[in-house]
Amino acid sequence: MTDRDTRHKASMEKLKNHVDEKIASATEQRGLLLINTGNGKGKTTAAWGTVTRALGYDYKVGVIQFIKGLWECGERNRLEADPNLEVVVMATGFTWETQNREADTQACQAVWKEAERMLADPDTYLVVLDEITYMLKFGYLDIATVKTALENRPHEQTVIITGRNAHRELVTMADTVTEMQEIRHAFNNGLQARRGIDF
Amino acid sequence: MTDRDTRHKASMEKLKNHVDEKIASATEQRGLLLINTGNGKGKTTAAWGTVTRALGYDYKVGVIQFIKGLWECGERNRLEADPNLEVVVMATGFTWETQNREADTQACQAVWKEAERMLADPDTYLVVLDEITYMLKFGYLDIATVKTALENRPHEQTVIITGRNAHRELVTMADTVTEMQEIRHAFNNGLQARRGIDF
Repeated sequence: MTDRDTRHKASMEKLKNHVDEKIASATEQRGLLLINTGNGKGKTTAAWGTVTRALGYDYKVGVIQFIKGLWECGERNRLEADPNLEVVVMATGFTWETQNREADTQACQAVWKEAERMLADPDTYLVVLDEITYMLKFGYLDIATVKTALENRPHEQTVIITGRNAHRELVTMADTVTEMQEIRHAFNNGLQARRGIDF
Repeated sequence: MTDRDTRHKASMEKLKNHVDEKIASATEQRGLLLINTGNGKGKTTAAWGTVTRALGYDYKVGVIQFIKGLWECGERNRLEADPNLEVVVMATGFTWETQNREADTQACQAVWKEAERMLADPDTYLVVLDEITYMLKFGYLDIATVKTALENRPHEQTVIITGRNAHRELVTMADTVTEMQEIRHAFNNGLQARRGIDF
């Protein structure tokens, strides 16, 4: 073995001990509340990655799309035939297209009823509340209502919340919070959004 | 209309103008180089979300898994029957399990040949180099070799690189860079990794 090989082995042994210790100390088992927030790319995309993952084990999954529902969407195309997946979309589209607070609020409340149904269903292993943060920000939904539904959900159910500016009370409740930070974005340098990559 | 409705409408009009301007100024069309880095959750998951999305439009996709290949993996289970998807895994598993630099280097170089093949194939719309950053960090792969393959790839091909501590030369090359920052992680609070959610 060269010196570099020996150093590598020692360093990997140390890392292994660290990983093993962490695994041993993680003993609680229950559904999680995850938040993907921040101004960067990947919040919704990571949620769909997790949907794909859960479907891979035949778990039942519910997705509510609060904003991009009218967009063409490759991941929904790819997975929608899956009998374990239910997707509900708020059919109004982007709030900057509708520009109508009252109609948006009604549409949001109707979709929230579907979310409440999923959040009360013990057979649903994963619920994605995609871009719900904007509904709270615009006042279409009430934070207390959302918190109650999350707190009373089945013990084994995981929920993923996506969107910028996550409400601080949700951040406090969450088990895992990731902030997707934009370091650079192609769109800001004149590059078009790409089919199959960006949507 | 109430005052709040009127203010909402004005604010949404302004946002719409901003969005429209950005869309109009994005005119260049080509494959992108995306990097998902940082210490938070969602780097690989977002890459799989994009894989699902691209498959939704029947694009051909190649995934190289440089580290987690031996892990059970729900998203791979869910998608592996898709004829448009090819997944190549570095079959040695985590470097902290093997603790053998020479064997890891050989395994990595063999898998890199498969990556080079995908990166030269004009029919492959998306290539994911999952956790390749560690290969560069450990010196199993050479940055110049990787850069050359990326620079010479087909014009329409998008590449996603994932992993912590992305090499600064890759960050410089990339069109979109997102840093997934860990604000909180369930695992550090004694919660077990969950099947269908974390793997």
